[in-house]
Amino acid sequence: MASPKTPKHQTREERARKTVAKIRKLAADTVETVRRQDNPAIDIPIRALSNVSFNEETRLIQLGDRAQHREFFNVSMAKKFMQTFLVASACKDLLESGKTTSIRDLFYMTKHTIKGARENTFDDQTESDIIIEDLEVSLDALREELHLFAAKRGSMVGPLTIVDAGDTIDLSHMGSGGWSIPSITEEEIIQFKKSEAQYILLVEKEAVWHRLNEDKFWKKHKCALVTGNGQATRGVRRLLQRMTRELGIPLYVLVDNDPWGLYIYSVIKQGSISLAYESMRMAVPDARFLGLRSRDFKRFKLSDDVRIDLEKEDETRAKQMLAYPWFKAKHWQEEISDLLKCGFKMEIEALSNKDISFVTDVYIPEKIGKGDWLT
Amino acid sequence: MASPKTPKHQTREERARKTVAKIRKLAADTVETVRRQDNPAIDIPIRALSNVSFNEETRLIQLGDRAQHREFFNVSMAKKFMQTFLVASACKDLLESGKTTSIRDLFYMTKHTIKGARENTFDDQTESDIIIEDLEVSLDALREELHLFAAKRGSMVGPLTIVDAGDTIDLSHMGSGGWSIPSITEEEIIQFKKSEAQYILLVEKEAVWHRLNEDKFWKKHKCALVTGNGQATRGVRRLLQRMTRELGIPLYVLVDNDPWGLYIYSVIKQGSISLAYESMRMAVPDARFLGLRSRDFKRFKLSDDVRIDLEKEDETRAKQMLAYPWFKAKHWQEEISDLLKCGFKMEIEALSNKDISFVTDVYIPEKIGKGDWLT
Repeated sequence: MASPKTPKHQTREERARKTVAKIRKLAADTVETVRRQDNPAIDIPIRALSNVSFNEETRLIQLGDRAQHREFFNVSMAKKFMQTFLVASACKDLLESGKTTSIRDLFYMTKHTIKGARENTFDDQTESDIIIEDLEVSLDALREELHLFAAKRGSMVGPLTIVDAGDTIDLSHMGSGGWSIPSITEEEIIQFKKSEAQYILLVEKEAVWHRLNEDKFWKKHKCALVTGNGQATRGVRRLLQRMTRELGIPLYVLVDNDPWGLYIYSVIKQGSISLAYESMRMAVPDARFLGLRSRDFKRFKLSDDVRIDLEKEDETRAKQMLAYPWFKAKHWQEEISDLLKCGFKMEIEALSNKDISFVTDVYIPEKIGKGDWLT
Repeated sequence: MASPKTPKHQTREERARKTVAKIRKLAADTVETVRRQDNPAIDIPIRALSNVSFNEETRLIQLGDRAQHREFFNVSMAKKFMQTFLVASACKDLLESGKTTSIRDLFYMTKHTIKGARENTFDDQTESDIIIEDLEVSLDALREELHLFAAKRGSMVGPLTIVDAGDTIDLSHMGSGGWSIPSITEEEIIQFKKSEAQYILLVEKEAVWHRLNEDKFWKKHKCALVTGNGQATRGVRRLLQRMTRELGIPLYVLVDNDPWGLYIYSVIKQGSISLAYESMRMAVPDARFLGLRSRDFKRFKLSDDVRIDLEKEDETRAKQMLAYPWFKAKHWQEEISDLLKCGFKMEIEALSNKDISFVTDVYIPEKIGKGDWLT
C-alpha cells in the first residue's frame, strides 16, 4: 500500500484568508493611489499568443511579462476598471462566507444597473468571464481559489480512497457510475487517503471508460481510471496533476486518433495558450500518450471500416500542430505527419470492430506492458 | 427509516435471457417465413407525431398501433431489413456475454463492407441509431435491456443507500462531487437499500445542484438531490420513476423559467413524442413543477437585471406548447400565457441576484412548505 506523499494541507479557511488578503491589498493600493491624487490603475498580464511561450526547461506553456496598465481615468478603460473591483468584491464575499459558486451565478451576483444611469455593470456573461481571468492572473489566484467554478464533468474509479469535502470515499466501490469529479479539486476539498493505484489511465471517451469499468480493468491492473468526457476540465486537470505528484504515479492518456485527441493530450501535458497562466498548477509534462496512433491501424490489423476520412479542418489543425514548439521533437513530427499521410482518423471505439473488449484485453495492456508510448 | 417497496428483482442474467428469447423468436419467425417461401417481414411500429397520442387516463404520451411492414423482398426495404437483423445479432452477443456498450460502439461492431459488394452495412451512426429504436419498439425491449446505452449525465446525493453493480453506496457521504448516475439504471444494476428521503428534488442546472449540495439542503430537508445537467437522460428518467414508485416519495422539479425548462419538466412528466414507446417505463405523471415561474418575478421582488428578453424562437416554442393536449389544463395555459405576456425569461441562477443561498434558504422551502407547485 503506497502511502500518499500528502503535503501539509492548508485548511479551506487558511487558504480563503490568504486570497482575501490579496484582494484587500489590491483595494488598499488603489485607495492609496486615490489619496495621493494619482490615477488609480491595475496591471493585468496580457493573455494572448503574443505573450505566451513554451518553456523548454519546465516543458510548460507559460505566460510572459507583458501587462496592460488598466487605468480608472481613461474612457476606454474606466468600465473594465469598475468591473474588476465589482468581481473582486463579490469573490471576497464568497470567500468570507465560505461558499463557492458558478461563473454564471457570479454574473448574476454582480449584474445591476448603475444608479442614476442606464448603464449595466455587465451586459452578458462573456464580460464577467474575462474579468475573472484578469483577476486570476493579476492576483495570482486561480478561479478555484476565488471560490468560482465552471461546469463539472468526468468520473473516476480505482483502488484508492479519497476524502471529498470531509466524506471518505472508497473509489473501488463506486458501482457502474463512478465518483463524479467535482469542479474544484484543490487540496482543501479533495485529499488522497490511501492508494494502491500504480498508474492513472485517462480516457477521452466516457463510453470507453464504461467499457473498462465494466471489465474491471482498474482492479486487475491496479490503476485509477478517469474520463474527462472529452476535453478535461480544470478540475480534472488539477486532480491529475495532484495525483501524479502526491501519489508518485505516472499518467497514461488514451484519446481518439485525430487532431482533437492530440490537442486534448497536449493540454494535459503542457497547458493551453489561453490558460497559460495556470499551466504550473495543472499540467503534467510527463504524461504518456498511449494512442490511438495512425500506426495502430496496421499493427492491430484494424478493418478499413473504421477509417474516417480527414476533413479539411483536420488537415489545417494538424499542420498548425506541426509548427508548435511543444511538438517539435522528432517523434511528434512523425506522429502528426503519419496522420496527414494516412489521410484518415479513427475513434477509440474503432477497436470494438475487432472485439468489444479488445481495448481492455489487448490494446492497453500490450501498450503499457511494452512501454510503447510517447511523451 | 422507510423501507423501500422493492419489487422482486430479476437478476441481470434472467433479464438478459428474456431479451435474448425475444430476439431468437424474431429470428425464428423469419426463418419460418422463408421456409414457407413467403416474403420475410417485420412489423415496426411507426414513431412519428401521426402515431402518437396523449392518453388522458394514464397521462402519458403513448405510441399508437400503426406499423410499417418491413419486407425483405422490397428494394426500398431490403437494406433496412438486413440492418435490423445485424443489430439484433450484435445485441444478442452483448446479452450473452453479459456486457453493455455505447450506441457508438454498436455502430462500429456492426459496420463492415458486405462481401463481394462495395456496399457498407452502415455508413454512419444515425443509421444504426434508428435501427436500435426500431428494435426497441418491435421487441418491446428498451435499449437498456438490449445492453446499449447513450451518454451518462447527472449526479445524486441524499439520505439514502443504494446498490450499484453490486457495490453498496451511501449517498449521504459523497462529498462535493456526488454519485454519478450511470446510463443504465435498471433494477438489475441499481437497487435501493434504505432511504430516509421524503422527496426527490430534481434541478435542471448543475450549478444549482452544487449550491444546494454545498448548503447541505438535502440533509436538512431529507431529500434526494438530483441534477440532470440539462435535459434528463433516459438513465436519470428511469431512476426517477423507480424512486417515486419503489420509495413511494414525490418528485419536485426545478427548472429555468423558459420554454426549454417547461419542456424538460414535461418530458419527465409524460414522456416525449420521439420516445413515446418508453413513456410507461420512464415518465412520472405526478411530478410537481416548482418553477421558476413568471409570477416569481413579482412575488420574490426580483430585480430587473435578471430579465432576459424572449427570443422569436422562445415565443414560437411557447405557442406550440399552448396547443399540446398535456398542457390543456387551465393552470398550464395560464402559466405559458404568463411567460408570453411578460415577454422575458429567467434562469434559476437569477435568484443569486438576491443572495447566493436564496434558492436554498427561501425559494424551495417556501414553495414546498406552502404546497405551491403545479402538476
